[in-house]
Amino acid sequence: MEYTTQMDAARKGIITPLMERVAQKENVDTEKLRGLLAEGKVVICANKNHRCLDPEGVGSMLRTKINVNLGVSRDCKDYDIEMQKVMSAVDMGAEAIMDLSSHGDTQPFRQKLVRECPVMIGTVPVYDSVIHYQRDLSTLTAKDFIDVVRLHAEDGVDFVTLHCGITRKTIEQIRKHKREMNIVSRGGSLVFAWMSMTGEENPFYEYYDEILDICEQYDVTISLGDACRPGCLADATDVCQIEELVRLGELTKRAWEHNVQVMVEGPGHMPMNQIAANMEIQKTICMGAPFYVLGPLVTDIAPGYDHITAAIGGAIAAANGAAFLCYVTPAEHLALPNVEDVKQGIIASKIAAHAADIAKGIPGARDIDDKMAKARRNLDWDAQFACSIDAKTAKSIRDSRSPEDDHSDTCSMCGKFCAVRSMNKALAGEYIDIL
Amino acid sequence: MEYTTQMDAARKGIITPLMERVAQKENVDTEKLRGLLAEGKVVICANKNHRCLDPEGVGSMLRTKINVNLGVSRDCKDYDIEMQKVMSAVDMGAEAIMDLSSHGDTQPFRQKLVRECPVMIGTVPVYDSVIHYQRDLSTLTAKDFIDVVRLHAEDGVDFVTLHCGITRKTIEQIRKHKREMNIVSRGGSLVFAWMSMTGEENPFYEYYDEILDICEQYDVTISLGDACRPGCLADATDVCQIEELVRLGELTKRAWEHNVQVMVEGPGHMPMNQIAANMEIQKTICMGAPFYVLGPLVTDIAPGYDHITAAIGGAIAAANGAAFLCYVTPAEHLALPNVEDVKQGIIASKIAAHAADIAKGIPGARDIDDKMAKARRNLDWDAQFACSIDAKTAKSIRDSRSPEDDHSDTCSMCGKFCAVRSMNKALAGEYIDIL
Repeated sequence: MEYTTQMDAARKGIITPLMERVAQKENVDTEKLRGLLAEGKVVICANKNHRCLDPEGVGSMLRTKINVNLGVSRDCKDYDIEMQKVMSAVDMGAEAIMDLSSHGDTQPFRQKLVRECPVMIGTVPVYDSVIHYQRDLSTLTAKDFIDVVRLHAEDGVDFVTLHCGITRKTIEQIRKHKREMNIVSRGGSLVFAWMSMTGEENPFYEYYDEILDICEQYDVTISLGDACRPGCLADATDVCQIEELVRLGELTKRAWEHNVQVMVEGPGHMPMNQIAANMEIQKTICMGAPFYVLGPLVTDIAPGYDHITAAIGGAIAAANGAAFLCYVTPAEHLALPNVEDVKQGIIASKIAAHAADIAKGIPGARDIDDKMAKARRNLDWDAQFACSIDAKTAKSIRDSRSPEDDHSDTCSMCGKFCAVRSMNKALAGEYIDIL
Repeated sequence: MEYTTQMDAARKGIITPLMERVAQKENVDTEKLRGLLAEGKVVICANKNHRCLDPEGVGSMLRTKINVNLGVSRDCKDYDIEMQKVMSAVDMGAEAIMDLSSHGDTQPFRQKLVRECPVMIGTVPVYDSVIHYQRDLSTLTAKDFIDVVRLHAEDGVDFVTLHCGITRKTIEQIRKHKREMNIVSRGGSLVFAWMSMTGEENPFYEYYDEILDICEQYDVTISLGDACRPGCLADATDVCQIEELVRLGELTKRAWEHNVQVMVEGPGHMPMNQIAANMEIQKTICMGAPFYVLGPLVTDIAPGYDHITAAIGGAIAAANGAAFLCYVTPAEHLALPNVEDVKQGIIASKIAAHAADIAKGIPGARDIDDKMAKARRNLDWDAQFACSIDAKTAKSIRDSRSPEDDHSDTCSMCGKFCAVRSMNKALAGEYIDIL
């Protein structure tokens, strides 16, 4: 083969079939896309072993993508049901599935995903380490962790979240700085816990070069995890978060030297007024590597509604340069999401991503909105449903409460008071009956 | 009486009991509040006949307030049920109720609201005109419309939406400019329809001085309606919208010359990137009069989820200076909202308002978030629920899917993988069991 990763190919001036497909889907020039890949500003997460993949590009100048977390757990260990959830998430528009399985024999499900699921697959190998070896955390060795990264790469995972950015220094910093929420990243806390118990350095930091070799071999994109992402507004943009970001910038550079593709993960909980600044800082410190944001949640007080707090923060983040949004469900902070939570989370994230794409002027992003406006002006309900992000729900709400009398071109919100009806009649010179 | 309206009192240097109460609720200096009222930058919507009112101030330097639209309709004409909805909205934190009743004898419900409801009450008299007289729109006279404004003022309504800003010129402009959605304001379309059918000038514009006399007498705040607010992204910030805004600025000035308090209504449907600019333009054109925004909805394609599109836009608007958010429910564009829709709409608006208050640095706004962070760090679930915007829903989600085994300090999202649990143990030097 003439190249290792998509980044390597791009740097060698090679247009790969994956680049052609992404350029076509995004309606951008192939050569321009190649240039962005070479610079690291766009990634195509595509493990060489993920053969059924329909690839997507991730980068701030492309459509904003969304990720859905799924996976078998102690509470939900039926592989078939989980696979149905995955395919339904793909149907609803998820561009990535992170398999966060944390129970039983995780490999068969991961391999099934890679065989059958056409969207990019991500994992967090440190979760799987404890499960894979069925040994408690403190008994694992650095080599054990790296071997699980290799296993996931061989299995065909397209991107892995690795919490490489915390070091032994972070332990002291967290103790000294007295954050309100310390570390709320699940993977980050496992690394921290292992380091605390063993006294050793973070294996994902210490053996980063070995990891880069693995990722280069299979073309696995590294998603640099933000262990110190703020877990509450009070911790946002503090020294722990920013120091880790600086480390992630250094690790981005080292990965690029190995032609390994990189995304950088970001906050977290954050007041609205800090989001744009965070996107700018990430762009400079991490040299434009695609930013993958978790939220940001713009208030801490809305458990049960964090898909909304995340949609507000995610829309602002994406409009200011984030490329990839991790969905948040209404069950966040409370429980394992059920099927309905997953749906609500996906739709809220899609709304945020789409609103941001319009705001940042992604070509064609507003076309579907303009189509909806025409359908609304014409009171053409079937056309409205066809433009809707969730046609079934929209139709069921309208049908559940039919318009009064026989004015079936309006809805029960306004009936004959409908502004669209009145204006259409007025502009056509017709008599407008309201009573 | 030494003064007519709160604005008149403020300009005469008088501190009224209402100002004292609002200053206390907002924790601002009374004299500062008086100054803002005198300038028109804050309003206290408080009809002299609304005796049970617990007043609120509306202005961008105070906490962002939310309004809930309710009222009897052909589909829901039970006064008692509607009154229960009102009181439940007040319990959920609505600072204003707009009574948009559009069926039957509307006065008894309006009077009951004023007698029993402690939050500010708004109406749109033009809706009620058709209903009140039980005559079709084209048969009403200018005097009929003004008489209904007087009736609402006498009944004790605190603020009225009046679409004074469109004129005969607007008819030509709408025809010429060919907007995608023309006029989507219900009241605006009624005024437009009446003008189209009768050939006369907008009575709310032509007889504005008479309206000012009425509003001055009872201290009714005028909410200048934005008939030309964009009904889709394509129409946002167009010449129709901005020309009307210029007219609303002139009308604001005329009201202030009569010591009549004014709010200005705003968009509508709007791409995220235009919202901050719209808030700035409103501030200069309307000289800092409080901005009351409907949405803005940041995409057109999410019927069934427009409480979310409005929360994104509303949060951005409020963070950039809007003072008052009109709630939007999931049923918007589809049907009359039911009880659950009302609840979802209120909570989404409260989230937007609260996130904006934190972002713009309203003193004390973040206190409850900081309390939540502490409760989360301590895995104290009762304390978390106590800080939640909807404790009942949060508790029911957690309880519906209990944590695995007996690790009841965590939740079923992560179980023993809980980052907070791991960190608390690590920082206490305890052994961290994960399996």
